[in-house]
Amino acid sequence: MSTVDTVLAHAAARREESRARWFELLRIPSVSAQPKHAGDCRRAAEWVCEQLRAIGFTANVRETKGHPVVVGHHPGPTGGGRHLLYYGHYDVQPPEPLELWTSPPFEPVLTDGPNGPRVVARGAVDDKGQTMTWLEALRFWHETAGGPPCRVSVLVEGEEEIGSRNLAEFLEENVEELRADLAVVSDTNQWDAKTPAISTRLRGMLYTQIDIRAANKDLHSGLFGGSALNPINLLTRILGDLKDESGEILIPGFYDEVPDLPEALRKQWDALNFDEKAFLGGVGLSVPAGELGRGALERLWARPTADVNGIWGGYMGEGSKTVIPAEAHAKVSFRLVPGQSPTKVLAGLRDFIVARLPDDAQVSIQVFSMSEGIEVPADSPYITAAKGALEATFGRPAVLMGCGGSIPVVSSMKRILGLDSLLVGFGLDDDQVHSPNEKFDLNCFEKGIDSHVRLLGALAGG
Amino acid sequence: MSTVDTVLAHAAARREESRARWFELLRIPSVSAQPKHAGDCRRAAEWVCEQLRAIGFTANVRETKGHPVVVGHHPGPTGGGRHLLYYGHYDVQPPEPLELWTSPPFEPVLTDGPNGPRVVARGAVDDKGQTMTWLEALRFWHETAGGPPCRVSVLVEGEEEIGSRNLAEFLEENVEELRADLAVVSDTNQWDAKTPAISTRLRGMLYTQIDIRAANKDLHSGLFGGSALNPINLLTRILGDLKDESGEILIPGFYDEVPDLPEALRKQWDALNFDEKAFLGGVGLSVPAGELGRGALERLWARPTADVNGIWGGYMGEGSKTVIPAEAHAKVSFRLVPGQSPTKVLAGLRDFIVARLPDDAQVSIQVFSMSEGIEVPADSPYITAAKGALEATFGRPAVLMGCGGSIPVVSSMKRILGLDSLLVGFGLDDDQVHSPNEKFDLNCFEKGIDSHVRLLGALAGG
Repeated sequence: MSTVDTVLAHAAARREESRARWFELLRIPSVSAQPKHAGDCRRAAEWVCEQLRAIGFTANVRETKGHPVVVGHHPGPTGGGRHLLYYGHYDVQPPEPLELWTSPPFEPVLTDGPNGPRVVARGAVDDKGQTMTWLEALRFWHETAGGPPCRVSVLVEGEEEIGSRNLAEFLEENVEELRADLAVVSDTNQWDAKTPAISTRLRGMLYTQIDIRAANKDLHSGLFGGSALNPINLLTRILGDLKDESGEILIPGFYDEVPDLPEALRKQWDALNFDEKAFLGGVGLSVPAGELGRGALERLWARPTADVNGIWGGYMGEGSKTVIPAEAHAKVSFRLVPGQSPTKVLAGLRDFIVARLPDDAQVSIQVFSMSEGIEVPADSPYITAAKGALEATFGRPAVLMGCGGSIPVVSSMKRILGLDSLLVGFGLDDDQVHSPNEKFDLNCFEKGIDSHVRLLGALAGG
Repeated sequence: MSTVDTVLAHAAARREESRARWFELLRIPSVSAQPKHAGDCRRAAEWVCEQLRAIGFTANVRETKGHPVVVGHHPGPTGGGRHLLYYGHYDVQPPEPLELWTSPPFEPVLTDGPNGPRVVARGAVDDKGQTMTWLEALRFWHETAGGPPCRVSVLVEGEEEIGSRNLAEFLEENVEELRADLAVVSDTNQWDAKTPAISTRLRGMLYTQIDIRAANKDLHSGLFGGSALNPINLLTRILGDLKDESGEILIPGFYDEVPDLPEALRKQWDALNFDEKAFLGGVGLSVPAGELGRGALERLWARPTADVNGIWGGYMGEGSKTVIPAEAHAKVSFRLVPGQSPTKVLAGLRDFIVARLPDDAQVSIQVFSMSEGIEVPADSPYITAAKGALEATFGRPAVLMGCGGSIPVVSSMKRILGLDSLLVGFGLDDDQVHSPNEKFDLNCFEKGIDSHVRLLGALAGG
């Protein structure tokens, strides 16, 4: 029996313990966006740190200007071999709206789903569950073989859901300590419940808040209507102008740096026979809403977007109030593709808004997140090793796919540490990520652990 | 000394008592839009009822499907003369946003203002203060002369701020009881702090809530962005389309029934030399925002509007959440001019929205308020009597003006009871009606009482 097989057998015998540790982490409401949960974020960091220490790592909770970062190191067996940097995040999205949850978001429950048992909780998959897949794999290597088969560092941050805003500075201050041969990240999806995947593309992101102010107080719409500027009408005009009916984004220059999809990639993605009707049907939709004339996977993986993620202003209570409000607000984000500069998109957005602003309106634009889209080489030895580990675990080949989401740290690690990332994740499209009733299939969680056990074995050799 | 002069002297000697009674009413948080204040609405109705009984009226709190109505009757001196119906409302707008008030909204305070002392409270002027002007006038007639100089009925409702939605039915069920010669309403403004006014026009209103639904849950903007319909983007597109850059409302047919302003009226209004710059300057604005190429008073009094009074959807908390929400909502209202049918405007709005709705979006439109604009004859004997009473009180002639606000009951009383309304009010443009720190100048309140004392005398004769 090879070492990897021994570790796998050990992991298989300890499924319930793995789940219990995962549940412990899920019970900590580490919502990074909400200041009231700052203490919970720290608790989650400390919990991760303790886990690392328990499996032979030198680990510490490290301060940033925001929520802390956990860093751990294990020398592995002496004498060469690769140095891997595992990345994860312990923070989660806000659970609101709470009334749509079928169970409390921070009390994980195991329930039955169409693909077998699943765990429902905020962070079940994103990214606590996924982080636990490799943390458990490292644990089982430690318990079976005394440690990982190569040198391993770990970086678990607490601000991924708010744009990893202090992480770049942390990386810059700790370049020497964190430089490795490869970053391993589990924050992406499988192709489907039975088919593993490696993501070779991620979209970038620009997330902003637009605040428009007009009068110095709320006004009566009867007394002032027809004379006073209404900032909500103005905001809807600006945001309504963002895209035309074909879904094209109308900020001048927005597409200047968006490359056409290479024909080879288009063919590869076409061959995946992605069923967009089923994808949308699962959430009660039927008609694709992106740019007309583009393929489904192209729209999801290789085209930028402009979404209003939130909007508010004026009277939002029951019944009616005849007010012309003083202010209107919106959260507006753009998914970007490799090649697009978030800075240039922000400048374009600012110009676009200012061009539509009458004299009496003031605008401020807050930026919560900026990251570039990334594309990793699909033919590296790391990808080959990962393909092998995944195929051995799932019994079928891994798909090389794109990902419409953004993991800002992946571009930071490339830029600051010179590290490519291997993106191997175990989520599914129906995981309700960022929504009420987020879940992670137990089978995905356990296959994730086994895949990481094998991946460690496969990547360890120099 | 005439009877009227005796009543006036009596009123002048009892200013503090008048103010104390007014404050009592202001302390009742009778917010009709908020179900938690239903009990307070009833308390306010009972308070008004007690006031009427104390001054010789047969009065009762009468049930409706919503907040109750107070009805009172006084036979006046026997033998002929006019029968007047005084209308007011005891309900007030929600006080939110509370943090912008300099004192608690339901604890009235007397403070100094540029025009002398003023009372700050929600409802100070709209309409508790204005209602108290004629209620106090009736009291002083009672205390001095044993009762009003003619037959008087009183109707004080509790749903004006939510569109008087049950009042029409109440009027229909009580036509015989409420039919009079003239309705007297104090819910409008003076021309300025020194110049009284009679309003001969009111705008009508259509107040709606638009709810748009798309996916059956909130979605992750990375996983679904480029494929899933975003209902906020859609809502901003629809509302952004409502008006063009010149302020013209783009619902097809919207202006079909909007009459041009008669040249004579335009001249009369031009002669008022309305200072729109100062009007807007008082609230921190400088540029008129209504239809280009129309006069200021025409825009405020004789042109319809389309204002978004509130909007909400998606993530409205701190920081960022990358969500494509399932729903988006807005409160949208239209001020209408005499001639426009609210029903036709509603149908036009519905068509306008549906024409912009993709397959996957569902819309529902709730209607909170519908009323027609009204125009009362400017040359009736009632207007002549009112002009005399106001000029005697203020020492200068009354202006005949329009009003941009809506008093739905005025059109209901015309339609159902066949009653014209005399609109004599004592508010000022800077009263912060419907806004934080609503106030009523003490001088306006007291001149209001005196005007109503004189008006009763002038209108009493058959």
